[in-house]
Amino acid sequence: MPSPTDRPTDRDVIVREVGPRDGLQLVKETLPTDTKLNWIKAEAEAGMVEFEVCSFVPPHIITQFADARAVAGRAVEEIPGIRVMALSPNIKGAEIAFEVGVHAMNYVLSVSKTHNEANVRRSREQSILDFAEIVKIRNADPKLKDIKIGVGLATALGCTLEGDVPEKDALGVLEEVLAAGADEVLLPDTVGYAHPTQVRSLFRKALDIAGDVPIITHFHDTRGLGLANVYASLEAGAKHFDASLAGLGGCPFAPGATGNIVMEDLVFLLESEGLKTGIDIEKLRAAREIVEASLPDEPKHGRILKAGLPKGFKPATNLIAAE
Amino acid sequence: MPSPTDRPTDRDVIVREVGPRDGLQLVKETLPTDTKLNWIKAEAEAGMVEFEVCSFVPPHIITQFADARAVAGRAVEEIPGIRVMALSPNIKGAEIAFEVGVHAMNYVLSVSKTHNEANVRRSREQSILDFAEIVKIRNADPKLKDIKIGVGLATALGCTLEGDVPEKDALGVLEEVLAAGADEVLLPDTVGYAHPTQVRSLFRKALDIAGDVPIITHFHDTRGLGLANVYASLEAGAKHFDASLAGLGGCPFAPGATGNIVMEDLVFLLESEGLKTGIDIEKLRAAREIVEASLPDEPKHGRILKAGLPKGFKPATNLIAAE
Repeated sequence: MPSPTDRPTDRDVIVREVGPRDGLQLVKETLPTDTKLNWIKAEAEAGMVEFEVCSFVPPHIITQFADARAVAGRAVEEIPGIRVMALSPNIKGAEIAFEVGVHAMNYVLSVSKTHNEANVRRSREQSILDFAEIVKIRNADPKLKDIKIGVGLATALGCTLEGDVPEKDALGVLEEVLAAGADEVLLPDTVGYAHPTQVRSLFRKALDIAGDVPIITHFHDTRGLGLANVYASLEAGAKHFDASLAGLGGCPFAPGATGNIVMEDLVFLLESEGLKTGIDIEKLRAAREIVEASLPDEPKHGRILKAGLPKGFKPATNLIAAE
Repeated sequence: MPSPTDRPTDRDVIVREVGPRDGLQLVKETLPTDTKLNWIKAEAEAGMVEFEVCSFVPPHIITQFADARAVAGRAVEEIPGIRVMALSPNIKGAEIAFEVGVHAMNYVLSVSKTHNEANVRRSREQSILDFAEIVKIRNADPKLKDIKIGVGLATALGCTLEGDVPEKDALGVLEEVLAAGADEVLLPDTVGYAHPTQVRSLFRKALDIAGDVPIITHFHDTRGLGLANVYASLEAGAKHFDASLAGLGGCPFAPGATGNIVMEDLVFLLESEGLKTGIDIEKLRAAREIVEASLPDEPKHGRILKAGLPKGFKPATNLIAAE
């Protein structure tokens, strides 16, 4: 049985490390299980509490995740105080997540119908029905009641196949997955098409619709606007941010994709804005060194650990605790 | 006599290429004069109308600018339709700018007193007096009346020597240089310390104080927040943006400085936001190729020309013309 860690309440915003999943899924070199766990441990020591650690897909699709059960299971067992999440792109993957006992699983479907067909080979409607089925499976088993079920609405901010995606389409699908019982919803810009004003508008409306259900940002820096989009989502009231250490990652449907936004730089942005992340930027260096040593040929991004913190820089104080 | 090109009125925002000055000042390899001019020409063909082309400093200080007179003079003569600007960090440099007949010159001083001493070896007060003297020299000679005199307030958003710089200090110096007759004022974040909310606040107040005098942004991406800061300045009403092709450039007082924000990505941000820049992003590729071929060992940055424009991307329509 999982013993899910609730989100900490001593932080203004929550950042989530998705590198072990999104950062690795296109990397050819397979990282050993121990290396993945060492990375997660090192980042947990810097204050990180949420990790998407793997994807439950068949090994012949993504070899990198052949050890997904071991990574997720051991992360839950061996690293106290973190929330372990896994991507489960279908019912089968969800069943594995439940069996392994992760704290949370993320399902995925695309707002763009063409992208959904290309990505998971089913209609968007069918994907939503499958999601509802996953929630039902969880709800039917009292042993699973603490496992949170999130869903990412891919292409919510643009699609490599369809181009612009109307905001009302994304909000419509959001309402459907909320009705189906989503515990949290990601509105990712996987392909790096989004621009700040678009982001601010979508997140304002989505946060309004979702009420207490967390809406999570997930930006890629493919076209350089990743942190500008983070800032726009902050203005809209977003409090949850995905990123990956050193900006690892990409997307099979995003040609030339440069990867996720850089965790270190994201934390610097948030702390500069006076928002307590709970992360010690300097301590991220140890985790980054593990990634650098184990993936020498992958492009690594990020500015703040290279340039150093500004003179006299003070991490954000705990605004919540101070209230 | 210069024949200054007025700023075009068919654009919502003006971007300025500062690479030939700020981008090159730390580059060890000296670019031939013809290469500099070819770069400027190629970028002018993409729609760029403003360039800071050199710095009038003694060659023993920065060898790269030993050909400054030739570059500025030939840019004025040989490339029609552009505004040619030069950095003149002191009275002597201003006299050269006047002699060469640039369309505009930029003086520089630092808001932080310690930084001003370190950078130009005089007190901030003396620097402001010198600036007023330069304006007087221009005003005294009817032949020089069309030359615009700008001034950059270095460290307006943070200082490597003093750390935080109080907003009121930057606004105080702004008022002094406006009183001394500045035609435009830069509020640079040369060292990459600024964060978006700080930028928005300073630019709102500065634009309010400056009235019709343009306030120009100049961000470095040293700590990854360059384009987020651009977006925040846009929200404040900024309309003028410095950048350099491929993000060339740094600052002697900013250790590990990664350079100016990337022109290509800046244009993508602005056009995505529906603001007509007058720049054809794809045509910037030709200029970038010149920079890449002539500076093979310099780090080149930028995402949009690597990833390509989003599917169905439309450049901003001319909002001003459409009004």
